[in-house]
Amino acid sequence: MKFCSQCGHPVIFKHVPDDNRARYVCENCHTIHYQNPSIVAGCLPVWEDRVLLCRRAIAPREGLWNIPAGYLENGESVEEGAIREVEEEAGTKVKIRSLHTVFSIPHVNLVYMHYLADLPDLNFSPGVESLECQLFAEHEIPWDEMAFNSSVFSLQKFYSDLHNGQRQVHTGVYRR
Amino acid sequence: MKFCSQCGHPVIFKHVPDDNRARYVCENCHTIHYQNPSIVAGCLPVWEDRVLLCRRAIAPREGLWNIPAGYLENGESVEEGAIREVEEEAGTKVKIRSLHTVFSIPHVNLVYMHYLADLPDLNFSPGVESLECQLFAEHEIPWDEMAFNSSVFSLQKFYSDLHNGQRQVHTGVYRR
Repeated sequence: MKFCSQCGHPVIFKHVPDDNRARYVCENCHTIHYQNPSIVAGCLPVWEDRVLLCRRAIAPREGLWNIPAGYLENGESVEEGAIREVEEEAGTKVKIRSLHTVFSIPHVNLVYMHYLADLPDLNFSPGVESLECQLFAEHEIPWDEMAFNSSVFSLQKFYSDLHNGQRQVHTGVYRR
Repeated sequence: MKFCSQCGHPVIFKHVPDDNRARYVCENCHTIHYQNPSIVAGCLPVWEDRVLLCRRAIAPREGLWNIPAGYLENGESVEEGAIREVEEEAGTKVKIRSLHTVFSIPHVNLVYMHYLADLPDLNFSPGVESLECQLFAEHEIPWDEMAFNSSVFSLQKFYSDLHNGQRQVHTGVYRR
């Protein structure tokens, strides 16, 4: 951030009164520009004993597999964003079962939230951001070709819950 | 948003290629300015059969009671933010038990995430954003003087879980 989004004046990065960290501040209109982490919402769609993954058609990690997910938009609940992302990336409208994982990645200011969801049928198809969508049984998961740690975390927890006969929400952190 | 934070040029609000909603776009440097919901992280601190609430010293809802919480900062995990907020508002370092609630408020672009946490001792004290901090038993909760729906939701779920002998993560949405 170099300029104030309210008045166009250059901003400076400095400590402000009654705050414990530096912020981008406009000394012209006195706006303080707070910057905060973003939520990436998605679903792990399940069909019998298989899960649906998407192969990314876009950077970063183009060509690698991922749980369908993307940035939560203003005006959405987390669930709405998670369902929309599956629809955009895999062309199907899933039904959410429950929250599955909350996974913070502090150094890139992201918090992933993955839900478990049921596929309504097998009529899924890749959206513009996906090269392909495919159902995988556990022994078929392409562990070495996963795009993001957040997906690995959610898949590992999905299978450990499955084998333990549990369903719970898992929280995790990835630090560089 | 009126000006580009990268180059200071006025932005326009328009649809962009390969996207399904309007964005603020700079036609000078071609930056697309995405805007996304923020996370408010906090903890419901528990001591025996009582919970710790803070009375707000600041707008909005000054003078009303709240579960200690605030905006997650860049570089933090959700848990780190939740612990920091309790320290800032109630002067004590809690130990997180588990995630308790995820509560979306789409019309203000917020997602509250409250954890259950243990107070280490009774040495809590109000920070600059709190008028007072107080432990409440269930029958003492000031339901009519709560600042935010997110706190009401988390307290209701806390007591329903307690009476049912359960502990689970609750997700909810508040729509205006």
